[in-house]
Amino acid sequence: MCELLGMNCNVPTDICFSFQGFAARGGKTNHHQDGFGIAFFEQGGWRIFLDNQPAFKSPVAELVLRYPIRSRNVIAHIRKATAGPVAIENCHPFQRELWGKIWVFAHNGDLPELKNESLNFYRPVGQTDSELAFCKMLDHLRGTFGQKTPSLEEIFPVLKKISDEITGEDGVFNYLLSNGEYLFAHCSTNLSYIVRQAPFKAAHLVDEDVAVDFSAVASLDDRVAVIATKPLTDNEAWTPFKSGQLIAFQDGAVSFAE
Amino acid sequence: MCELLGMNCNVPTDICFSFQGFAARGGKTNHHQDGFGIAFFEQGGWRIFLDNQPAFKSPVAELVLRYPIRSRNVIAHIRKATAGPVAIENCHPFQRELWGKIWVFAHNGDLPELKNESLNFYRPVGQTDSELAFCKMLDHLRGTFGQKTPSLEEIFPVLKKISDEITGEDGVFNYLLSNGEYLFAHCSTNLSYIVRQAPFKAAHLVDEDVAVDFSAVASLDDRVAVIATKPLTDNEAWTPFKSGQLIAFQDGAVSFAE
Repeated sequence: MCELLGMNCNVPTDICFSFQGFAARGGKTNHHQDGFGIAFFEQGGWRIFLDNQPAFKSPVAELVLRYPIRSRNVIAHIRKATAGPVAIENCHPFQRELWGKIWVFAHNGDLPELKNESLNFYRPVGQTDSELAFCKMLDHLRGTFGQKTPSLEEIFPVLKKISDEITGEDGVFNYLLSNGEYLFAHCSTNLSYIVRQAPFKAAHLVDEDVAVDFSAVASLDDRVAVIATKPLTDNEAWTPFKSGQLIAFQDGAVSFAE
Repeated sequence: MCELLGMNCNVPTDICFSFQGFAARGGKTNHHQDGFGIAFFEQGGWRIFLDNQPAFKSPVAELVLRYPIRSRNVIAHIRKATAGPVAIENCHPFQRELWGKIWVFAHNGDLPELKNESLNFYRPVGQTDSELAFCKMLDHLRGTFGQKTPSLEEIFPVLKKISDEITGEDGVFNYLLSNGEYLFAHCSTNLSYIVRQAPFKAAHLVDEDVAVDFSAVASLDDRVAVIATKPLTDNEAWTPFKSGQLIAFQDGAVSFAE
C-alpha cells in the first residue's frame, strides 16, 4: 500500500512542514520506500518531482524540502509497490490534460476488479491499477461532458458515481485528484483532513520532532486544507473521512461532500 | 528565442557534461534566462524537471547536474520568452500521452501563422505557440493513425508534412520530439548534431572550461547522438541540419532523414 498527502489553499502556500513528516514515512518511520512523487500547481502551470528512491533519502525529495514552492494545490504520494514494479512510470502522481487543464492523480489501495477495456481517449503508460483507474475516470468525464468544461457542481456527482463503480465490491480506492482549481479526495479506508485557519496555533509532527507555529507565519485570511492517509500532527484534531466519501476542497475549505 | 539540447543513445547515458555547457547559456554565457526544462526517459517511464529560474543558478538545474540520471532519450530547453509570459506552464518540454506512450516536445523559434483551431484531442494549457504546435502535431498523428500505434517508418513522412505546414511561409520551427523510443529533430534555422562512437576522444565545452575524455568512460559499443541549437564543444565536428530537414534518431544514430 501507499500513503497520500494533499493540500488545497486559498493563497499559495508551501508544504515543507507537512512534506517533512510525510517524506519520513518513505523508508524511515514507515516502509513506503518504492519511490515518491509530488505535484505542485503554480498559477496556470504545474510540475511534478518524481524519484524511484525512498523519499526519506532521495536527492529529489531533499530538493523539494529546501526549495519551497508556493502552491494552492499539491498532491504527494509515497509508494509501497503492490501492482507494477518499482519504476518511474509507476510513481504517482499521474497526469493527463483534459479541457485545457492538467489533471493530477494519486491513489492508495488496490482495485482487483478493474479491467483494461473500452478506453477512448486516455491510456496508461505504466503497469499500475492506479494509472488505469485514473485513465478510466478521465475517459468517463470526457465522454460525459465532451469538449465543454463543466462546473465543479456538474462534475461532482459524475465523479462520485464512477468512483463507486471503479471501487466495486472489493476495491480500495483512496485517491486525490486536482486540476489546479479544486482538489477531490475520495476515501475507501484511510483518509483524514484538517482545515487550518485563524486563529492559528502551533502544530507538531508525528514522524519528526518538528513543530511550527502557524500564528507566526500565516496571515489572518489564510485557509489551508491538508489531507493525509494518516494524520501528520499529534496535537491537532483531524477529521476522518467516511468510507465511500468524496469531498471537493476549494480555497482551503470543503466545497462539496457526499 | 530559445535553445535546444537533445540526446539519443543505444544505452542509458547521463547528460551531465552536455547539460553543464547548455545550462551556462541559461543566463551566464547567454541570455536564455526565462526558465528551463529537461525531460529524461527512463525505461518505460519519464520525468521532467522544470524551473522558471535561470538554468545557470536554478536549484533544480543544480540537482540535475549533481544527480546523474541515465537515459536513452533526453530533451532540454532554455527559454528566452517571446510568446507567453515567464511561467511554469510556458516552460518546455511539454508532454502528452499518445498510444500509451508519453511524447515530449521542445521548440525554438516563432510560428506567427499558427492558428488555434480544430483541435480534437489535445489542448494547450499555457500561452506559447510552441505548445499549440505540439498539440496540432499530436492531433494530426492521432487523427491519421487512430488507435493503432504506427511504425517509425509510417510516422516519419506524416510528421514531415505536418511540420512543413506548421512552419508555413514565415515560421521558425526548430524542435525536438521523442516518445522514449526514438527522437525526431526538425530544423528551420539552427540545429546541429554529433554522433559519438568508438574510437572515442576527448571533448571540451564551448561555454565552460570543462573537458571529458569519452574513451575513459564509454564502452566500445556505446553510441550517443547529441543535438543542439549551437555546437556545445569546440574540438569536435558537428553536422549542421539543412533548413526544413527532419531527422529521426534511433539507438544513437540517424535512422531516417529528409
